[in-house]
Amino acid sequence: MPAQDETLKIDKNSNVLMVAGSETDANIYYASHFLAPDPFIYLQTKGTSYLLMNDLELDRARAQSDVAQVLPYSKYEAEAKTAGIESPGLSDVLSLFMLEQSVSQWIVPANFSLRLGDALRKQGHTLLTKDEPFFEARALKTETEVEAMREAQIAVEDALDSTLDLLRCAEIKDGLLVLEGETLTSQSVRRHLDLALMEKDCIAQHTIVSCGVDACDPHNEGSGPLRAHESIIFDIFPRSNKTRYHADMTRTVLKGKAPDALKRLYDTVLEGQLLGISQVKKGVNGREIHQNIMHCFEKKGYKTGLIDGRMQGFFHGTGHGIGLDIHEPPRISKADHVLQTGEVVTVEPGLYYPNIGAVRIEDMVLVEDTACRNLTTYPKFLELD
Amino acid sequence: MPAQDETLKIDKNSNVLMVAGSETDANIYYASHFLAPDPFIYLQTKGTSYLLMNDLELDRARAQSDVAQVLPYSKYEAEAKTAGIESPGLSDVLSLFMLEQSVSQWIVPANFSLRLGDALRKQGHTLLTKDEPFFEARALKTETEVEAMREAQIAVEDALDSTLDLLRCAEIKDGLLVLEGETLTSQSVRRHLDLALMEKDCIAQHTIVSCGVDACDPHNEGSGPLRAHESIIFDIFPRSNKTRYHADMTRTVLKGKAPDALKRLYDTVLEGQLLGISQVKKGVNGREIHQNIMHCFEKKGYKTGLIDGRMQGFFHGTGHGIGLDIHEPPRISKADHVLQTGEVVTVEPGLYYPNIGAVRIEDMVLVEDTACRNLTTYPKFLELD
Repeated sequence: MPAQDETLKIDKNSNVLMVAGSETDANIYYASHFLAPDPFIYLQTKGTSYLLMNDLELDRARAQSDVAQVLPYSKYEAEAKTAGIESPGLSDVLSLFMLEQSVSQWIVPANFSLRLGDALRKQGHTLLTKDEPFFEARALKTETEVEAMREAQIAVEDALDSTLDLLRCAEIKDGLLVLEGETLTSQSVRRHLDLALMEKDCIAQHTIVSCGVDACDPHNEGSGPLRAHESIIFDIFPRSNKTRYHADMTRTVLKGKAPDALKRLYDTVLEGQLLGISQVKKGVNGREIHQNIMHCFEKKGYKTGLIDGRMQGFFHGTGHGIGLDIHEPPRISKADHVLQTGEVVTVEPGLYYPNIGAVRIEDMVLVEDTACRNLTTYPKFLELD
Repeated sequence: MPAQDETLKIDKNSNVLMVAGSETDANIYYASHFLAPDPFIYLQTKGTSYLLMNDLELDRARAQSDVAQVLPYSKYEAEAKTAGIESPGLSDVLSLFMLEQSVSQWIVPANFSLRLGDALRKQGHTLLTKDEPFFEARALKTETEVEAMREAQIAVEDALDSTLDLLRCAEIKDGLLVLEGETLTSQSVRRHLDLALMEKDCIAQHTIVSCGVDACDPHNEGSGPLRAHESIIFDIFPRSNKTRYHADMTRTVLKGKAPDALKRLYDTVLEGQLLGISQVKKGVNGREIHQNIMHCFEKKGYKTGLIDGRMQGFFHGTGHGIGLDIHEPPRISKADHVLQTGEVVTVEPGLYYPNIGAVRIEDMVLVEDTACRNLTTYPKFLELD
């Protein structure tokens, strides 16, 4: 029977089951603080947490994880064989553990495997799925988590700083940016940024360095020569290798002289972004913030929608939660969400018009009781000096 | 009703549904060749493939994906609202599309969301789960895929080469490796390796540079000063940014003079690895290869199992499939698998004894009809010259 319950909350006495690889699944990493490339089993019941680990990871899990009991998967596998199951699978092993605990009802994440879920239900267990945020506490950052994100953010700002120096030192030749005889491209500048981040033990992937009309597609990573007098979007969102927390910042800059229409576009996005930041605090509905920014843009004549067969204007959300995942709850968008103290969100409105250019400006902020704390300190300017 | 069918095969006429982010889910990337951080919808029916994309990704998906039809999610969302659903969710939107196609039975991956699966089944759709390999063809690499992995492998070999030069140039002082006044550590050497890989547009994470007793835990990444006269395991497995394919190689080296017991351990692992490679070809059962290596080790007196409360000997599989995922089917292990032409697998036996040291040697090979093609060309030696 499909079983869902919107009111499910997880606390230390809940019965929780997860099976996932912690490299890609932040919930199992959050619960275990154990990093492994292959899926493993996490259970929580009667106030105790458990890992069932294969022989290869057993000792490392005991040494490194935050979990109270690390048990050998092979022990339950052997028991299942003794009980007459020729080739026991994951569901047989889990079933044995669940019976041993005399617990038949478990909360699993929404993304729990349908195949494993089917098998466990067939063996008589009840699984209740819970949507994100699976662990409510994950959305409310501790001071240690905020510090980890601030540390990653410092790496981002240093990396952007040294990268913009390249653009500052470049000359403009035939409308392109040339440094020491080489034409700067999205690729070469991204390489510089990503290497600078790796020097600070941060892994960046899909860093956006996107110029002109390319940047009008907000997720286009950019390619080819950077051009003078056109806006260049830098969107930088690495993960810290040390803490696994992310930072996320976007700046839009230009080498040369900005056309008036682009200057006005930049000023409008900046006005909208500052308006958004000024409204972020506990108890405010993110939907209102998003609408207020949209309204601010519309008042200046910047419409959003399908124009000449492509999306133009402000056609993405205002921001997203960030932490162990680059995108995690909550969203600041047209959907309702009442902000809570401790959430870390981005505020990143943008405007995109192929005949003018693209501008996006993004800071990462911590929601507090009466305002927000901006974790980003990098200055905002369009034209490079 | 739990529905599973071990005989399911996917061909171009199958009805396939996936909902996942292609950054972390290789199957949806394999089918769409579209890279996006957030989950999106892939469907395949009656020989045509579809993406349902949000407005933000619509244009980019049309330009970049391999999929025949890229449709706006918002169109179906609007239709659902017209049909009286106040806040249509993913299952409502999918349901509309499925009804439009008059197809009620779909194959989904084993890791399909239990919550979404429950919702779709409640709406009357049949979902059959299929285990890995979801797409049979993904395990059988094309020449283009092999070329991508060979390209990543060249980056790995170049990076290790320049890294071992650091060790060659280092002096031994008080048993440690010192280069230009700095003591070499797992961390500093890993940093050098990872930066060299990034220079070649490869992203390395969790590269293992592990010395002495640390390396006796095969997934320990290593930390602290590297010591002379002890074995150091380098296990390097980056992803190419350009192609998203992986390479994977392990070498065990030593600076200084190897104790006889360690030399003998090294020679035994090398003998086992070469034995394994010599047996890889179409039609051979991986289980036999694994057993033969284990037997070779046992004949020389190297036992495997729990010794003094920790796993010692050869306590992991012989190898794994590799491609878009670092670990993917098939495995060469104690489980049955008959090798097929076109599979790319690692052959990486190891022996781990805290009182002697750790040795693992790994190549990546392509299964062919009468033998295997070794995609690794890096030499194998214990003592650095």
